[in-house]
Amino acid sequence: MIRVTIYNEYVHEKKDEAVRAIYPDGIHMALKKHLEDEELQISTVTLDELPEGLSDEVLENTDVLVWWGHMAHQHVPDEVAVRVQQAVLRGMGMVVLHSGHHSKPFKLLMGTSCNLTWRENGDYELVWVCNPAHPIAQGIGRFIKLEAEETYGEPFGVPEPDELVFIGSYQGGEVFRSGCCYRKENGKVFYFQPGHETVPTYHHPEILKVIKNAIKWAHPIYRVKALECPHVGKPLED
Amino acid sequence: MIRVTIYNEYVHEKKDEAVRAIYPDGIHMALKKHLEDEELQISTVTLDELPEGLSDEVLENTDVLVWWGHMAHQHVPDEVAVRVQQAVLRGMGMVVLHSGHHSKPFKLLMGTSCNLTWRENGDYELVWVCNPAHPIAQGIGRFIKLEAEETYGEPFGVPEPDELVFIGSYQGGEVFRSGCCYRKENGKVFYFQPGHETVPTYHHPEILKVIKNAIKWAHPIYRVKALECPHVGKPLED
Amino acid sequence: MIRVTIYNEYVHEKKDEAVRAIYPDGIHMALKKHLEDEELQISTVTLDELPEGLSDEVLENTDVLVWWGHMAHQHVPDEVAVRVQQAVLRGMGMVVLHSGHHSKPFKLLMGTSCNLTWRENGDYELVWVCNPAHPIAQGIGRFIKLEAEETYGEPFGVPEPDELVFIGSYQGGEVFRSGCCYRKENGKVFYFQPGHETVPTYHHPEILKVIKNAIKWAHPIYRVKALECPHVGKPLED
Amino acid sequence: MIRVTIYNEYVHEKKDEAVRAIYPDGIHMALKKHLEDEELQISTVTLDELPEGLSDEVLENTDVLVWWGHMAHQHVPDEVAVRVQQAVLRGMGMVVLHSGHHSKPFKLLMGTSCNLTWRENGDYELVWVCNPAHPIAQGIGRFIKLEAEETYGEPFGVPEPDELVFIGSYQGGEVFRSGCCYRKENGKVFYFQPGHETVPTYHHPEILKVIKNAIKWAHPIYRVKALECPHVGKPLED
Repeated sequence: MIRVTIYNEYVHEKKDEAVRAIYPDGIHMALKKHLEDEELQISTVTLDELPEGLSDEVLENTDVLVWWGHMAHQHVPDEVAVRVQQAVLRGMGMVVLHSGHHSKPFKLLMGTSCNLTWRENGDYELVWVCNPAHPIAQGIGRFIKLEAEETYGEPFGVPEPDELVFIGSYQGGEVFRSGCCYRKENGKVFYFQPGHETVPTYHHPEILKVIKNAIKWAHPIYRVKALECPHVGKPLED
Repeated sequence: MIRVTIYNEYVHEKKDEAVRAIYPDGIHMALKKHLEDEELQISTVTLDELPEGLSDEVLENTDVLVWWGHMAHQHVPDEVAVRVQQAVLRGMGMVVLHSGHHSKPFKLLMGTSCNLTWRENGDYELVWVCNPAHPIAQGIGRFIKLEAEETYGEPFGVPEPDELVFIGSYQGGEVFRSGCCYRKENGKVFYFQPGHETVPTYHHPEILKVIKNAIKWAHPIYRVKALECPHVGKPLED
Repeated sequence: MIRVTIYNEYVHEKKDEAVRAIYPDGIHMALKKHLEDEELQISTVTLDELPEGLSDEVLENTDVLVWWGHMAHQHVPDEVAVRVQQAVLRGMGMVVLHSGHHSKPFKLLMGTSCNLTWRENGDYELVWVCNPAHPIAQGIGRFIKLEAEETYGEPFGVPEPDELVFIGSYQGGEVFRSGCCYRKENGKVFYFQPGHETVPTYHHPEILKVIKNAIKWAHPIYRVKALECPHVGKPLED
Repeated sequence: MIRVTIYNEYVHEKKDEAVRAIYPDGIHMALKKHLEDEELQISTVTLDELPEGLSDEVLENTDVLVWWGHMAHQHVPDEVAVRVQQAVLRGMGMVVLHSGHHSKPFKLLMGTSCNLTWRENGDYELVWVCNPAHPIAQGIGRFIKLEAEETYGEPFGVPEPDELVFIGSYQGGEVFRSGCCYRKENGKVFYFQPGHETVPTYHHPEILKVIKNAIKWAHPIYRVKALECPHVGKPLED
């Protein structure tokens, strides 16, 4: 049983009727409903529950944190962002969705701007598998077709991924590294691009399959004790 | 002054009038004509000049080898392929073009199948820069548009590139890792996807700019002595 | 249940009484005896059983191949080396031990010389964990001490590992990248340096722990169909 | 001409006579004196000159920033650390020395704890070249011997280096990834471990050679315009 916490800022859904029509209870509840099963035990937390909702205790009891945020990145307290970063460095897995590329914890973990180019006009996207043996691509064919998505484009200001699993192409001809794996000290991070709030991406079975695969991939074998900076004797005198 | 040798199998141009119309003296001579200047001193060699044309002596006097091949990969002698591989491991640079992904020396260097999907029907390609600070992308804008190219598609059966510089997208929606950097022991290898024989890709100024950048990037600082496997004394008794 | 095949050339043990004293039935049988349990089902094959012993059928029924070879690398038929390489590219895992760095299949997979420096005079080795969260390091402390090992030294002529798990240091002061992970198309390869034939390394519980961890790490999720190079239609017309 | 700025916190040298005996004018002035030549134009800045000493204007006119800090990391203003990080992301090179592994800008760039193990008792170090063709290793033999250095040990809590150039081994048997290359968006970062304040490491000709090589390697081809996050039209309508 993997203990998953889904963070969703939960702002668009309350402000915008079109978004609410797609995700009446919020993106977090849609994901929870679709993903929860005998393998995944899922809790959710939203922006208005911070900072307590992502306390050290919550993170200590989270194997994999899923993150969706967009317009309210700046309202996430800095202390929460640092806490999430530190939990990943200690071994917690993290799956960062869509506009979470600009979230505080993801930027702290990457160390870069995480900028990208973008436009929003209902183009379709093809999410191509470029690493078919990767655990995150299992059960997916050559590509996933999304009838409409926000267009993201290169250059994507992130470190070279340790493993690239998906590349997206869009109707306008843009490309984007849509599925990127990183190891960050003792934790694993997966960034997955699809999921604009105005389209029903998180009801798509293959997208959900990828997210579930990613949660299982990011699941720590065990939580290692954080690396420390000890004063130690000579090894052979230990 | 960088000493460049361009290998072209030079078969399509002799057999097929449409190809000859684009490259009357062969792809190698078009590249030589376009690229030669005060920085690059260029020799050419074709399949019918092998194996002598790529002797150890020739390779020893080549800083960067450019390779174009397609229908005659199997006619390149194994000894030449091994010689090229060994020269790269000793420090020679190599730029592998288009269908050279299936050439013997490239496959020896990658250790993988180098397979890909493909189709050929005149679609356009956009070659996107995903690493704008890379030396190979200098002087290129957001993308290069090629009015027609052969379509290559993922998955591309190569090791994860050390640095990915370009991603191509095609009219049909496919994507391909079009510009891939590898360090192989003491040598550097760049794979660059554009360049189907039936379209005038190697007359395109930006494509030529990329190839020249790649030659300069792959140029060895100096030729290191090949790594050996010596029986040595303890370091502090040296 | 993981189906493991252990290849050992089995030459030293028959020729040299000192080696036979350590491994009376050969390194392969020592590894089989120590490693076989409810998770690992182990077969063995030796040089004099080639090429049939590593037929396509055998490889098709092997999840992870373990390889030990040294003085008889050149007697492994080329066809077997290529068959092993191809099996890895299709998804079989491979754990290459000690002087297997110069084996034909490992060199084919790496694409490089795999050279290193070495000396043999009974120095001790410390095998340090540099990636404590990696599955292959689980159950190991800060380092493994081996009272005596052959000394291997940098530079090691391999591609930059995808993940470096162990670095060895030796009494004479040398260092070596002792545990290196590679993804090769659909298969995973782990190189692990300890295991000279004249010392009882493969009776050491922590070394056996690492080898078992590596087998589990290299175990393919499933055998993917080999990547091919198909002529395909446009994606949206599929 | 490369414009280099050397930051040194310059605290040990003022507080501790033994350090002052080695570096009477500070580590920064020793480095400047040893490194300045017709290729490198060097400025220096110390902790008591911050934040103005590393203003945006200074950084805009710095090609490569060299950083030495230890006991006063926490006194570097956060705004300076962020400014340095942003300058690297825009293309400035950075060479981080010794205990700079725990400096604020390096930790921001890595996104990890950058922890390590350590002890301080005058052991010697051998700094081994594991990538002899790398520009930073040019002019160095198999290893550099330092008669005394602080011992650093794995695990080192950093992302897997893009290229590993040096591995150190110490008298006590420890190992450490002593020379690590990173690309961070448009900038390059090199971490180099030697340089404890109580030993004359920065008077050692080979160490100075490495630092100079690293400065040249990190030197940006040109300062790219920072990646942004633009709202753009379809590519073919541009």
